[in-house]
Amino acid sequence: MEGNFLQLSYALDTFYFLMSAVLVMWMAAGFAMLEAGLVRSKNTVEILTKNALLYSVACTMYLIVGYNFMYPGDPISAYLPNISFLLGADNAVDAVVAGGDGAPYYSGMSDFIFQAVFAAATMSIVSGAIAERMKLWPFLVFAVVMTAFIYPMEGYWKWGGGWLDQLGFQDFAGSVVVHMAGAAAALAAVILVGPRLGKYGPNGEVRAIPGANLPMATLGMFILWMGWFGFNGGSELMISNVDEANAVAAIFVNTNAAAAGGMIAAALLGRFMFGKTDLTMAINGALAGLVSITAEPLAPTPGLALIIGMVGGIIVVLSVIGMDKMKLDDPVGAISVHGTAGIWGIFAVLFSNSDATFMGQLIGTVATFAWMFIASFIVLYIIKKAVGLRPTEEQEQEGLDVEECGMEAYPEFNQKN
Amino acid sequence: MEGNFLQLSYALDTFYFLMSAVLVMWMAAGFAMLEAGLVRSKNTVEILTKNALLYSVACTMYLIVGYNFMYPGDPISAYLPNISFLLGADNAVDAVVAGGDGAPYYSGMSDFIFQAVFAAATMSIVSGAIAERMKLWPFLVFAVVMTAFIYPMEGYWKWGGGWLDQLGFQDFAGSVVVHMAGAAAALAAVILVGPRLGKYGPNGEVRAIPGANLPMATLGMFILWMGWFGFNGGSELMISNVDEANAVAAIFVNTNAAAAGGMIAAALLGRFMFGKTDLTMAINGALAGLVSITAEPLAPTPGLALIIGMVGGIIVVLSVIGMDKMKLDDPVGAISVHGTAGIWGIFAVLFSNSDATFMGQLIGTVATFAWMFIASFIVLYIIKKAVGLRPTEEQEQEGLDVEECGMEAYPEFNQKN
Amino acid sequence: MEGNFLQLSYALDTFYFLMSAVLVMWMAAGFAMLEAGLVRSKNTVEILTKNALLYSVACTMYLIVGYNFMYPGDPISAYLPNISFLLGADNAVDAVVAGGDGAPYYSGMSDFIFQAVFAAATMSIVSGAIAERMKLWPFLVFAVVMTAFIYPMEGYWKWGGGWLDQLGFQDFAGSVVVHMAGAAAALAAVILVGPRLGKYGPNGEVRAIPGANLPMATLGMFILWMGWFGFNGGSELMISNVDEANAVAAIFVNTNAAAAGGMIAAALLGRFMFGKTDLTMAINGALAGLVSITAEPLAPTPGLALIIGMVGGIIVVLSVIGMDKMKLDDPVGAISVHGTAGIWGIFAVLFSNSDATFMGQLIGTVATFAWMFIASFIVLYIIKKAVGLRPTEEQEQEGLDVEECGMEAYPEFNQKN
Repeated sequence: MEGNFLQLSYALDTFYFLMSAVLVMWMAAGFAMLEAGLVRSKNTVEILTKNALLYSVACTMYLIVGYNFMYPGDPISAYLPNISFLLGADNAVDAVVAGGDGAPYYSGMSDFIFQAVFAAATMSIVSGAIAERMKLWPFLVFAVVMTAFIYPMEGYWKWGGGWLDQLGFQDFAGSVVVHMAGAAAALAAVILVGPRLGKYGPNGEVRAIPGANLPMATLGMFILWMGWFGFNGGSELMISNVDEANAVAAIFVNTNAAAAGGMIAAALLGRFMFGKTDLTMAINGALAGLVSITAEPLAPTPGLALIIGMVGGIIVVLSVIGMDKMKLDDPVGAISVHGTAGIWGIFAVLFSNSDATFMGQLIGTVATFAWMFIASFIVLYIIKKAVGLRPTEEQEQEGLDVEECGMEAYPEFNQKN
Repeated sequence: MEGNFLQLSYALDTFYFLMSAVLVMWMAAGFAMLEAGLVRSKNTVEILTKNALLYSVACTMYLIVGYNFMYPGDPISAYLPNISFLLGADNAVDAVVAGGDGAPYYSGMSDFIFQAVFAAATMSIVSGAIAERMKLWPFLVFAVVMTAFIYPMEGYWKWGGGWLDQLGFQDFAGSVVVHMAGAAAALAAVILVGPRLGKYGPNGEVRAIPGANLPMATLGMFILWMGWFGFNGGSELMISNVDEANAVAAIFVNTNAAAAGGMIAAALLGRFMFGKTDLTMAINGALAGLVSITAEPLAPTPGLALIIGMVGGIIVVLSVIGMDKMKLDDPVGAISVHGTAGIWGIFAVLFSNSDATFMGQLIGTVATFAWMFIASFIVLYIIKKAVGLRPTEEQEQEGLDVEECGMEAYPEFNQKN
Repeated sequence: MEGNFLQLSYALDTFYFLMSAVLVMWMAAGFAMLEAGLVRSKNTVEILTKNALLYSVACTMYLIVGYNFMYPGDPISAYLPNISFLLGADNAVDAVVAGGDGAPYYSGMSDFIFQAVFAAATMSIVSGAIAERMKLWPFLVFAVVMTAFIYPMEGYWKWGGGWLDQLGFQDFAGSVVVHMAGAAAALAAVILVGPRLGKYGPNGEVRAIPGANLPMATLGMFILWMGWFGFNGGSELMISNVDEANAVAAIFVNTNAAAAGGMIAAALLGRFMFGKTDLTMAINGALAGLVSITAEPLAPTPGLALIIGMVGGIIVVLSVIGMDKMKLDDPVGAISVHGTAGIWGIFAVLFSNSDATFMGQLIGTVATFAWMFIASFIVLYIIKKAVGLRPTEEQEQEGLDVEECGMEAYPEFNQKN
């Protein structure tokens, strides 16, 4: 009976992991729709192709090597040459029903799929930032290295039990480990590819380049918001008793509150600063709220979560403006949403989690940023020298869709030029 | 062992609540896409902004005060001045493992998030009905009052254990408490803002104003249909034994059958009346079927659920036509879908639930309608007098997107005028 | 206590079924968006209407008769005249808590809704293949017969315990039973309706007819991918112990790996063959990967699943080209994705499942194909003779939207022509 009970408990935790994984996988669609809605129609097929393929590449590379790098101690993770295509056998029934502290309580495969979709999310952040001016296959080559090695390495530092974890760095679901990490890689890419043609005028003026399909972008935000319940909720890693179930529920409430707060604050600030209620700012505010709470979605009260999200929403508006001042062209605001708000989120942990220290958070952030930025910069620099990152001016003017993919996103709609 | 068992059971019920909440949250995207697809492109960004912000406002206000008004007896609901940003501590392990009749069996926070997304759904109904001619911020001010106070008050009457509940009024998941309530508020708003320019001609003719993006509208319907499994399924409030699991499964089957019946009936009636198979009628038929079964998705056989949905689908087509006869302009048919079909649904309870009485259902419906309509009317009237509800004729002609949000939904597509 | 434990276990398995059903239901939206994105804008409303109504028709007919044909031995399935609108009572508590080998362990109603959405998926395959040139109501009449009788009959052969099951034919979640079956019906329909006007030139040239909205099509792919976790994951039929939970997790990993492999292989092959990275090929590659692994998503290692998916992705590109060579016009590639890749998938079972035999797989495939093709052909032929399948040339030229549905998908966007 005790054994059966442990089995049932294992099944519930595994199911909870799998449903969380489905929600995070769904975020791939969210990033794709958000980015497809915020670029011009001539670059829409290409950004869709990047998003679809990067998800496939990330899942594949993470399967082959990434998971093993990041979680070397996991039962299904096996080093060469003991490989079963690099994922080993799942937990035996005996080990589960033995119970006790070290006994496995959920399927290793369910953990793998949950972690794999995180790797894909990291890479999705990059695709938004370099939209409309980076060639497809060089991007995908970078995705291979990023999801096989660069991301898993820093992921190991914290979640795999590496030095940042031992240092006491606190990052519950990845404000830094996933979001700021993706933004740091994106920043390296943005510096190396440069801004879109015509984005910054000769006299320092910033030209707005509106997205072609705002309903699509809004859908992307809703998908990401929905998926974040799995992203943060699943990161509790257990639901099968009262304390854990309460924790997952609190994470849901806080995640939702932070997103709501971020959207409201960004919309109000945008209204105040520009005289109009900028939908794209509201969208980025919600996402920034989500990123901000991701480092610690459990410990805050819902009221504090709301405030953390609101600050995130304000920060993202200012960051988007600041990025343009620095002539760092980020068509969807990915670096501001995931990077700037991610840094805010990691320090906001200090308000509610007494295990976190300022120095621990600072070292974790700086080390992760440095690793992600430098490693990405080097890999992208090599690719740039080898095959180039950027299409020709003519190709960029014409749009990447025809050049890279040989098709248009909306071939029947007459388009303004 | 008994205690562990109760904990695991608690975890399953909490997880079921949380997954239901995710599905209902997703309905916010459904309303947004439905409405964005059914308005003209010049008002698309604005309706997206309304939908996104109303969700954030609803979740925030419901967190701060709404939940406390609606469920004063709930463990996590705390009156001033004993507040923890108005949500208190979740259930203690001891209380759960004690077992017995009054013992908590799921997380209060999971209940909160499930209820919060209901509050947002109520407000989404209003946004559709007043689409294309109501200013953004007055709408959001109304959303604040609605989700903080107006909706929670009548919600308390029934679900919080108030007088309608004691009277025997039966409304399982909210055909009246949510849907007709939202429609009643929408009706007040529609009367106060008036019809769109040009909708009704000087000689009483009704001018069709087609929606700009029907794939988006259809996506919205599918999202709502999917979300309704959480809306109705989660309202059973428990799944952790055979009877409850069977009940949730029956609710899924009935919810799906009613939607299917509603769509088929509306499509056939539309084909018969207009000679064409009107997709928007089919969409509204499915939604009307869903609203119709929401008052009692458990007791009917699947066959009866199918029929209840079919009648809902027929009613909505007639109601849409009738609304236009009364010059009540409702661009997406929200009042017909949620109000007229909601009233049908509440009386259809009499066919299968012997606890329901005609008088009980009548009083519940009339009281809810009166409260929602009058309270909404007063609040909106005050807002109208203070700052106005409607943009100028020039602004409406040009479209609310540029006026309110400073951007276009599809800036690159040449548009007909 | 033992009884309570069995009840909780029953609840978890039922909940897992219901969540899987929600995911498969969501695939209806995926098919709708995929097809709406890949047809021309003048036929978009009509394909949306077909997809929406076929889902409703499928659920309704499967409720009334289909489930009874397919699962005559199921507790809730009752033959005439013992009907409760053709679904009977769900499992009694006593039968569950008695335990033992034959005891029911999940709700029959949850099985019904899971199976019903499979029936709808089968029919969705047909709608894509005959897009842009088949009349709406004849299609729906076919949907009635298909989901009431044709599909349930062959479904019974395998999953209802019929002769193919007894023969040892192995098809875990329906590479053949659902996907190739739908493709066989689609092939019959494609032959009977013929190609779209202008698709094949007088000198044998094939004219590309691009889809009108590629973000929509990409969204459809992501929805289908997400839904497939329910499609394959739910087909394990149990999750409530360690072995079953591990199995469901492995299915998730393999399903995802095969889709990723399929997309990467199709994109690379497309890049190699055409010099461009064709997004629609990548989409079809992912879907082909999913179809390929559906016959056996449990037994392979993740590495083998990746390879099975990759081969599926290559096959689908070649099949799409081959279909055009044979002048079989399939606007969305449905027959290649579901049929050709389905056949590959059913034989790929031989690599990992020792219960499968070449002859068993061959007989199952041939018998299912023959039944589906011939039965569909006969029914469609009768409909063709009675009312015709195809609109007039003028109607087809003008587009089916105005003719069938009296509205346009994008009425405000100026369209090229």
